[in-house]
Amino acid sequence: MQISKRVQNMGEPALLKYYPLVDQAKARGIQVYYLNIGQPDIQTPQGFIQTIRGGHPEVLEYAQPEGETDLREAAGSYYRRYGLNFEKDEMLITNGGSEALLFTFLTLFNPGDEVLTPEPLYSIYKEMAAVSGIHLKGVKTYAENGFALPEKQVLEEAITEKTKGFLMTNPGNPTGKVFTQEEINRVAELALKHNLFVITDEVYREFIYEGAYVSPAHDSRLDEQCVVIDSISKRYSACGARIGFVLSKNKEVMYALRKLCQMRLAVSSVDQIGARELFKLNHVFFNAVIEEYRKRRDIVYECLKTIPGVVAEKPTGAFYYMAKLPVIKATDFIEWMITSFQEDGETVLLSPANDFYLNPADGADEVRIAYVLKSEDLRRAMALLKKGLEAYRLARPEAFKEMTDVH
Amino acid sequence: MQISKRVQNMGEPALLKYYPLVDQAKARGIQVYYLNIGQPDIQTPQGFIQTIRGGHPEVLEYAQPEGETDLREAAGSYYRRYGLNFEKDEMLITNGGSEALLFTFLTLFNPGDEVLTPEPLYSIYKEMAAVSGIHLKGVKTYAENGFALPEKQVLEEAITEKTKGFLMTNPGNPTGKVFTQEEINRVAELALKHNLFVITDEVYREFIYEGAYVSPAHDSRLDEQCVVIDSISKRYSACGARIGFVLSKNKEVMYALRKLCQMRLAVSSVDQIGARELFKLNHVFFNAVIEEYRKRRDIVYECLKTIPGVVAEKPTGAFYYMAKLPVIKATDFIEWMITSFQEDGETVLLSPANDFYLNPADGADEVRIAYVLKSEDLRRAMALLKKGLEAYRLARPEAFKEMTDVH
Repeated sequence: MQISKRVQNMGEPALLKYYPLVDQAKARGIQVYYLNIGQPDIQTPQGFIQTIRGGHPEVLEYAQPEGETDLREAAGSYYRRYGLNFEKDEMLITNGGSEALLFTFLTLFNPGDEVLTPEPLYSIYKEMAAVSGIHLKGVKTYAENGFALPEKQVLEEAITEKTKGFLMTNPGNPTGKVFTQEEINRVAELALKHNLFVITDEVYREFIYEGAYVSPAHDSRLDEQCVVIDSISKRYSACGARIGFVLSKNKEVMYALRKLCQMRLAVSSVDQIGARELFKLNHVFFNAVIEEYRKRRDIVYECLKTIPGVVAEKPTGAFYYMAKLPVIKATDFIEWMITSFQEDGETVLLSPANDFYLNPADGADEVRIAYVLKSEDLRRAMALLKKGLEAYRLARPEAFKEMTDVH
Repeated sequence: MQISKRVQNMGEPALLKYYPLVDQAKARGIQVYYLNIGQPDIQTPQGFIQTIRGGHPEVLEYAQPEGETDLREAAGSYYRRYGLNFEKDEMLITNGGSEALLFTFLTLFNPGDEVLTPEPLYSIYKEMAAVSGIHLKGVKTYAENGFALPEKQVLEEAITEKTKGFLMTNPGNPTGKVFTQEEINRVAELALKHNLFVITDEVYREFIYEGAYVSPAHDSRLDEQCVVIDSISKRYSACGARIGFVLSKNKEVMYALRKLCQMRLAVSSVDQIGARELFKLNHVFFNAVIEEYRKRRDIVYECLKTIPGVVAEKPTGAFYYMAKLPVIKATDFIEWMITSFQEDGETVLLSPANDFYLNPADGADEVRIAYVLKSEDLRRAMALLKKGLEAYRLARPEAFKEMTDVH
């Protein structure tokens, strides 16, 4: 009596191993700044809870399997502002973007199918691929050129007869990369030529600091091939409300996805009531949020560029930096920061990048920095990172990289 | 570019085809009583929304992947009252009982594995099996003896070397069957002898009108083999809150299930805040609810026993009747009731039973009646069913069964 191979094939977040150490650090009186998780600290717009207060029915009934009509209509108006024209029957509401992704994987691919995706990638894609029996095939992108999409030839070389899809996150987590029109065109040409489904995960759509939002869903040639994944979590600082979306103009795909939605009956009624209000927010709300994150991004950059040996282009989207540090093993450095470093009783927790690669040996010297702290805290956290690196160099010279290969 | 075989293998709820007809009936001014779905009409306890009003934080953050600690503790106290001793690390909170079931299927079984289950069965098990690549193998149970579990020999004959689990719903949907101690023992002996996982879906635990609640989870010999599925939906009339549970004492199973929970990040924070309050309700609340359903069950029974040719023992649990009608095809009768029957501008919608069988040819003369209407409406709905059958007999004698094989 063993558990299934598909779940055995799943990994666990690398971060989990640090939490017991963080607890020990706290027990020693150390304050920890968290740069490791993408949990925004922006206040959730009050409309969410106010509407729940007013709109709660006597009997909390199942919502429709495909999501409440009024929420899909409200979302439709929002999408149109971004040039995405989806009718309400081209849209399903899911338990967060995660369910949207899992259902899409289960629907589009058979076990054994290959899906191409730029690396580094959002780590949870790996677990969803394991559960679905899909083989993710990475095409590497690099900090040195801001994680630009590889050239057509590199992409084509990775394609085999088993390749059935292309999976992208735009703006990128963990890279903060925003795809350019030219890169989107490259994806479109590839998908059209090789009959690939394109899954575009756009949960950070608003978080663009330079350049413009371009989606493969803007290209009508891909109407039958493109599936958009979305979520209110980051956009409205409402991660705890499990409201995601999956959008497609392919009727067969939508019919199949709807069967999966029927299988799990419904999404939280109360969260849907609250979410409807959030979609009424416009650019005034987003502008303020984006300005705040832009400021934070710049704070991280101003510090990173003063640290010898760090490689990190300024990201243009989302709220993450993927940075190369001058260390042999980022996992060791992160652990050392929690167990052996402090300044004035404070330290910082980072995310190791190996979680964001298909081969855990990759990204050994990289970390992900989520800039989701208030400016003052972020400045302090970055100063701690800088001082930590200096102290690590002295304490563990053998674990530190030679400065000859400095950026 | 086709959708996956696993989703192609999924069915759609048979009921869906009636809804356009219901809309047409409504457009003709007909009032329809719904006996077809298990959506309770009992008021959701007000503690749910009151607590949300008080307890909503400024930032609606991700909850823990395994579910909030305080909700798991509150649930633990509730389970102990039913003789189920699960610590909070033997418990995960899921997006409804549906996610608990899907994750359990994905965890315990490999594609191609067989799982034994009494038929008729909760229809959604079939869709989850298709998605997971599992082969459900039915052992038939019958209206004539209240859907009693088959004898040991019948169960054993259905077991092959591929059989890895036994799946049961207790109390049963659609049967209303409550397993006796002797039947639970039979399941336990079978599972122990053949090394089967036992999945016991107990979302109707409180809804028992005669006899006692007995669970395979009460038998410590099954600690490593038993997984309990649960949900607050029916119990607290809170279907729209997506709060389910999966419980097991098998550490390896729990570790695997936790990975699936991490994959989808979290369950609705607001629903978890509300649910915590619901678990404070005690037998005073349940007694009132159960008395109400008992009364409704008896209303249905009093009517059914006056209809010639109907076979339906009085169920002892849940809020469903699975009844044999004196018709050749229940699907035709149900459709006819919506398109061609009315009395004083009213008619009734039933659930066809073929959805509740693995082979859609089975259960052709059976319907499921959900008694989730107020007494007065239920009396009227049943009277309409009775009159409808009489009218159907006159209108479609060829579709009606000979009265010689009356119960």
